[in-house]
Amino acid sequence: MTESPVAKGLEGVVVAESRLSRVDGLKGELIIAGYDVQELAGRVAFEEVAHLLWRGHLPNRAELDALRAQFVQHRPLPYQVLSLIDAIAYKIGMEPMGALRTAVSALAVDAMDPFDRSPEAEYQRAIHITACIPTIVAAYDRIRRGLSPINPRQDLSHAANFLWMLTGKEPYPVSAHALDTYLVCVSDHGMNASTFTARIIVSTRSDLYSAVTAAVGSLKGLLHGGAPSAVLEMFQAVGSAENAEAWVRAELAAGRRLMGIGHRVYKVRDPRAKILAELSEKVADKTGQCATYNLARELERVAVAVLEEVKPGRRLHANVEFYTATLLDLLGIPGDLFTAIFAIGRSAGWMAQAMEQLADNRLIRPMDHYVGPVGLKWVPIDQRP
Amino acid sequence: MTESPVAKGLEGVVVAESRLSRVDGLKGELIIAGYDVQELAGRVAFEEVAHLLWRGHLPNRAELDALRAQFVQHRPLPYQVLSLIDAIAYKIGMEPMGALRTAVSALAVDAMDPFDRSPEAEYQRAIHITACIPTIVAAYDRIRRGLSPINPRQDLSHAANFLWMLTGKEPYPVSAHALDTYLVCVSDHGMNASTFTARIIVSTRSDLYSAVTAAVGSLKGLLHGGAPSAVLEMFQAVGSAENAEAWVRAELAAGRRLMGIGHRVYKVRDPRAKILAELSEKVADKTGQCATYNLARELERVAVAVLEEVKPGRRLHANVEFYTATLLDLLGIPGDLFTAIFAIGRSAGWMAQAMEQLADNRLIRPMDHYVGPVGLKWVPIDQRP
Repeated sequence: MTESPVAKGLEGVVVAESRLSRVDGLKGELIIAGYDVQELAGRVAFEEVAHLLWRGHLPNRAELDALRAQFVQHRPLPYQVLSLIDAIAYKIGMEPMGALRTAVSALAVDAMDPFDRSPEAEYQRAIHITACIPTIVAAYDRIRRGLSPINPRQDLSHAANFLWMLTGKEPYPVSAHALDTYLVCVSDHGMNASTFTARIIVSTRSDLYSAVTAAVGSLKGLLHGGAPSAVLEMFQAVGSAENAEAWVRAELAAGRRLMGIGHRVYKVRDPRAKILAELSEKVADKTGQCATYNLARELERVAVAVLEEVKPGRRLHANVEFYTATLLDLLGIPGDLFTAIFAIGRSAGWMAQAMEQLADNRLIRPMDHYVGPVGLKWVPIDQRP
Repeated sequence: MTESPVAKGLEGVVVAESRLSRVDGLKGELIIAGYDVQELAGRVAFEEVAHLLWRGHLPNRAELDALRAQFVQHRPLPYQVLSLIDAIAYKIGMEPMGALRTAVSALAVDAMDPFDRSPEAEYQRAIHITACIPTIVAAYDRIRRGLSPINPRQDLSHAANFLWMLTGKEPYPVSAHALDTYLVCVSDHGMNASTFTARIIVSTRSDLYSAVTAAVGSLKGLLHGGAPSAVLEMFQAVGSAENAEAWVRAELAAGRRLMGIGHRVYKVRDPRAKILAELSEKVADKTGQCATYNLARELERVAVAVLEEVKPGRRLHANVEFYTATLLDLLGIPGDLFTAIFAIGRSAGWMAQAMEQLADNRLIRPMDHYVGPVGLKWVPIDQRP
């Protein structure tokens, strides 16, 4: 029926024009809505980068105050969502991303008018969902630990309020700033699998709740956002910096992949890895917990060197997941929540990409190539082999 | 960064090889795992086509009995899912597909071992989810009508049991057979948007619950599975067969699209439309409700003729949604549930396609083409315009 080549994995296939982010894997460059990520990191809050992605420019003071006020207003969860989390948080099948996926889907109980598809209505939904994701993650974690969820605070930033809801303690400024910078760094990243999923969903003229629910389900995969938790498990398996080289050689000899090393797109060091490594160093200095940071640096050094020896020319480097694990562990966040924290940051990009898709939409509907049998004839069930 | 053309909508881009279904839009042919859909329609039950898609052949008696027993066992919902439906069924933001999306996501509470990724474990999950979808849809509809959900029956087929749970009455054989045939007809259909979504999700090594949750969210869109409800609204707006021509001309003159006419892929009449039109006639005959059927036939005739006059050469025909609306309305199913009924049938294909993707996986991760600004410099917030 078709003679087109099969673009399995869609590698190199350009599916959209976008003003949101540009990833240059050869230069190791990430541009977010016009700004190099290194221009933004540490200087803008998550709320500012959300405004940048959604409105096309960094907010002035009045715009930022307005957006913050809307976020704050939407932070508390509808009671149906809270009782849902309460009902599922203890179940083994509901690891953090399964719970987040279900709770995000359930946020639609608060959708005011699902039939209003104006850009302004979509924008309000984007604020609603983005504001609620941290509350869901924190409530889930506390409930599964047998603790009561903590209500959001109005006076804290998106990042600081999340740490408050998670721990019940106001975070150190250095910790809140580090988490905020992490959220900015991962806010958007080209046409990754979860973002592409969100665009496909709205391309059918489905809604933002469906798009973000699906994106969470996609980010959950080990080959996408699921990696940082596996990186932490790797750190725990290595144990200490001194063991790094022996461990790396043993893993490679056994034919296993090193978590957090290498990326489909980046052929040099991921610029976000650099930012998160520096942040990790800062947090480690302030908190005096240097073991994880030292292990990560040594493991990166050894892994890159040994891989260059074993697979010369492949140019494998520590990726964003590697230093995400380092940083989030230093912030005291449980390892199995790392992907959900990634979702808190990436939600800004999902909303932006979905709204961009809706602004100039065409149904995303590819083809497949049928390689099965044809012309089979039905036979009655009792005559089947 | 790239000079590749933008494949917006991915039209004509081949993303996978598949043994599951082949759609030939020029010949008006649909092959499901080797069988022309007309070879299967009316002769096999939904459970048989599920086995065909999942195992590669129509089941013999023992295989069918075994699969039916597993479906029956999984039909009752976990109590957390039932109470979730109870909490959300009345909310305006939770139309049927939003509720189905949330409840399917919540089914993961019953996942036994989320870390077992063997093909057999995925197959068990496929059975679990497929078995539960009709129970969710029926429970939701009854709860929102202020009625108690009805427990599934063990002695009825997938199709008949759904009608039982929806109405509390054992359906006429002709009705159960018609619904069963509908489910078979829509069980798989190439690389449509929801199926593609399911494949992307598992390509990250996420799980089947995430894949089907996302597929439901995708099917929900008006440009995909959301159309049949809109077709019924069109029938109601037309009112009767005599009004059809005047109505069609007025709609086209106003620049509006006719629902249920035309398809991205089919350039002749969709073979499923023929099957569902004949089934509708049969049900109309048996139940004596001929008005909807007569209106649909006349509306199709007029719409095709007037469109050929207004847009010659476009070869627009009634599609599967058109006669889905006709048939499901004749079966007494509320119009806003049509997309959810579509999901009951398509779930077989989603599972099959997700399992096929997992069997030979590669992360689906396309590119975009950045068309925004570059080189912007951060300025302090109080200096921004």
